[in-house]
Amino acid sequence: MDITAVNALPYEDFVNIFGNVVEKCPIITAAVWSRRPFVSLNALEAAISEFIDDLPESGKEGILRCHPDLAGRDLHSGTLTRESREEQARAGMDALSSGEASRMSRLNEEYKTRFGFPFVICARMNDKANILRQLTERCGNERAVERERGIEEVKKICRLRLQGLVLCDAPNKL
Amino acid sequence: MDITAVNALPYEDFVNIFGNVVEKCPIITAAVWSRRPFVSLNALEAAISEFIDDLPESGKEGILRCHPDLAGRDLHSGTLTRESREEQARAGMDALSSGEASRMSRLNEEYKTRFGFPFVICARMNDKANILRQLTERCGNERAVERERGIEEVKKICRLRLQGLVLCDAPNKL
Repeated sequence: MDITAVNALPYEDFVNIFGNVVEKCPIITAAVWSRRPFVSLNALEAAISEFIDDLPESGKEGILRCHPDLAGRDLHSGTLTRESREEQARAGMDALSSGEASRMSRLNEEYKTRFGFPFVICARMNDKANILRQLTERCGNERAVERERGIEEVKKICRLRLQGLVLCDAPNKL
Repeated sequence: MDITAVNALPYEDFVNIFGNVVEKCPIITAAVWSRRPFVSLNALEAAISEFIDDLPESGKEGILRCHPDLAGRDLHSGTLTRESREEQARAGMDALSSGEASRMSRLNEEYKTRFGFPFVICARMNDKANILRQLTERCGNERAVERERGIEEVKKICRLRLQGLVLCDAPNKL
């Protein structure tokens, strides 16, 4: 799909295709449709980033709270979105040892209790050991730092999901 | 559920329960969790309204674009959210005559082509005849008028969904 095809999509198709580039936040995709035409995939990604940046702090926390825990109950109950399931599996989150699983669970709870939103990291850019290390370290940060850090990770996830959707059938088109 | 119980919910339960009071926009519910404790159900509703009001125009259009057509393809394919399915059924949208169905379809397309977002109306506060009449009339409005009018309807839908969730087991508690 090239950017001309993306720009020609009616909003319903646009939201159906790109609605989960930010996890469970189709409103963001639906909002940036107002800013088409996009000159490139990067321009679409930039429009999403700007929309996120303009949200109040509570809105950014809202985005984070729409994310599942890594190796959490949604993974175990099969209720992850397709995108999250693939990303978590690629990072080995569905194949933790019992020791790793209990450590992850304990740290996730500690993080959520401290910050009121979940630990968000771009799983596709990290392996299991790295995720556990960063979760441990980030539990010690300040809330405002973690809110911004989580949003940075949301944007990385968004970029990879966008690229996967647009470039998969035409790697050199955009 | 009284407001004390609502205020005591961890964000995950809060979002699971209230995440669809604005159709497919759990980010809004997840955002206003930051503003708890709420003194009443009205205060929770007001926090949601304020969050919506503070969004840029594109964000308001984004909310509207997360709504399905009335008597549209999501109803026919069974992909409506549970809340929308119940609301559309109550207004008779699942039992239109073929003449009514084709009129509704034609007007929905006309509305979407004109405005770039779908016709949104609180189905539970309107019957079939009224919905068709208002859809016809509102097709003639200006875009900015319809954006605000649609958002007013989103808030009515939100209020009824909230009341249904909080008051169903304790009508006099809030």
